[in-house]
Amino acid sequence: MKKQFAAAVDVGGTNTKFGWVDSAGQLYGSGSVKTGEFSTAEDLIHRVYLELQDLINFDETEAEICGIGVGAPNANYHTGCIHHAPNLDFAKSIVPFASIFTEISGLKCRITNDANAAAIGEKIYGKARDMNDFMVVTLGTGLGSGIYTGGQVLYGSDGMAGEMGHTCLIPGGRKCGCGRLGCIERYVSIGGLTTTFLEVSEGKKGELRPRQIQALAEGGDQDAIQTYRLTGEYLGLHLSSMAALFSPEAIFLSGGLAQSGEVLLSPMRKAFEDNLLTHHKGKIKIELSGLKKQKTALLGAAALAFSSFSQ
Amino acid sequence: MKKQFAAAVDVGGTNTKFGWVDSAGQLYGSGSVKTGEFSTAEDLIHRVYLELQDLINFDETEAEICGIGVGAPNANYHTGCIHHAPNLDFAKSIVPFASIFTEISGLKCRITNDANAAAIGEKIYGKARDMNDFMVVTLGTGLGSGIYTGGQVLYGSDGMAGEMGHTCLIPGGRKCGCGRLGCIERYVSIGGLTTTFLEVSEGKKGELRPRQIQALAEGGDQDAIQTYRLTGEYLGLHLSSMAALFSPEAIFLSGGLAQSGEVLLSPMRKAFEDNLLTHHKGKIKIELSGLKKQKTALLGAAALAFSSFSQ
Repeated sequence: MKKQFAAAVDVGGTNTKFGWVDSAGQLYGSGSVKTGEFSTAEDLIHRVYLELQDLINFDETEAEICGIGVGAPNANYHTGCIHHAPNLDFAKSIVPFASIFTEISGLKCRITNDANAAAIGEKIYGKARDMNDFMVVTLGTGLGSGIYTGGQVLYGSDGMAGEMGHTCLIPGGRKCGCGRLGCIERYVSIGGLTTTFLEVSEGKKGELRPRQIQALAEGGDQDAIQTYRLTGEYLGLHLSSMAALFSPEAIFLSGGLAQSGEVLLSPMRKAFEDNLLTHHKGKIKIELSGLKKQKTALLGAAALAFSSFSQ
Repeated sequence: MKKQFAAAVDVGGTNTKFGWVDSAGQLYGSGSVKTGEFSTAEDLIHRVYLELQDLINFDETEAEICGIGVGAPNANYHTGCIHHAPNLDFAKSIVPFASIFTEISGLKCRITNDANAAAIGEKIYGKARDMNDFMVVTLGTGLGSGIYTGGQVLYGSDGMAGEMGHTCLIPGGRKCGCGRLGCIERYVSIGGLTTTFLEVSEGKKGELRPRQIQALAEGGDQDAIQTYRLTGEYLGLHLSSMAALFSPEAIFLSGGLAQSGEVLLSPMRKAFEDNLLTHHKGKIKIELSGLKKQKTALLGAAALAFSSFSQ
């Protein structure tokens, strides 16, 4: 039997990364281009596909390509389109990304948002292999979520469901990029942490990056510790509401901010347990993703392709 | 072909109602007993099954019974048990209600919580027949929700998912019966409305029932109008977060409080639309349930039996 490969593409606001992945989750060669250098999806895809072809010489007697999986912001699994992505110049309207990729490459292509891809990656290659109900929450520039219910990704009627980042944490709270007030993304994300630190320190210590705030916290700075404590409590409280809705077996955290360590995770776990419904207490684990941070997005995109196209 | 019937049972804190329903949703005879008169599930079920048998004489050459469907608070679909229901004396611990019913009646029995039953009823007999993604929210003594995703009821890993009533609306807010703070059930329910009216009127008009507050609102009382406006806004805002998570085609409202009319529904719809994500605006309808208020629970329980046991 031939070895199967998927092309994996992770479209981000700054970089678009790509590579080849086999069905066991091994990454064979990868590369990246600057997303902003391309004004149309066609130009970006032409370039990415050229570079993908250069990465590996497949021996067609031994290997076959099952298709392409793409993770991208505001991607719609049902339609294959990217919808009004504020951080992507080429997708200010609705762009049929998967169809264009298929036209250019001749390969089948599936697209989903990056957090859903991370959840599919966790299911195929990570810690959720035996789970039917779980969530992956990605903590980075934004807060994304991919949710499995009954063994299926939650896509909803329009292919865009699962947006925990834009559920309200604090009514009337901070203004979000989506136009609403108080979304949890504005509290639990890189920008959210920075804002909370500015508020807690009353601006006296300047606008710092999470890594700087973490270093301060590790050095005993009370404002920095309080900032992580609040951020962890926001996340723990909100995840307890998600637990009431979804009764997941586990919640996996991914993304840069998830690597902050106990300064974030310890207050988060306490707020989560304190706010769980009685029948959930002690039963739902929160863990770091089983996928290596640098590889999550590509493994997720590849898992999407394998779960869609592999026989 | 024989006509199919299901026995439907709705276990409530005050009354346990029951009846026979055919596959078209026609209710044939119904009755009720006082739940509090029975100290064990066995006693309650014996009595309910006796009364059910007295309601109709089935001609076995023309009719057959497909099974029993039960809606009950804190019911677990996966295990058939009722878990720690604060309002049911016979279920202070874990009671295997479905198994006991089968033992006593010889009929197959399925159980789920009342809001899930209402959602199944909406799918089988109501306005959601052609929908795969929708929610039913029951507004009464509590706030319950039954959620369909991808054509399936959301049960989660433990059979208890879909508890929107115990998701947090206001962090640190009103104390809920579940032990947590700020659950939406404490704001959008009969008790929630009463509390909000007490707050808005600063207690000067006494502790009134929703019907009295509604009469005041219809008479132009500003405190009463403000109470309904706040309640509608709480619900609309929270449902917009549910829309971000579930991308439903529609949300159906059921239960006594849902019958309050435009004094509640108009501010709710405005808050909902104002807080939807851009791609959802104008696309998700909120409507009253298509099931008659008095029959929702029994039709839901019957729909559970038909969807579980009917060939």
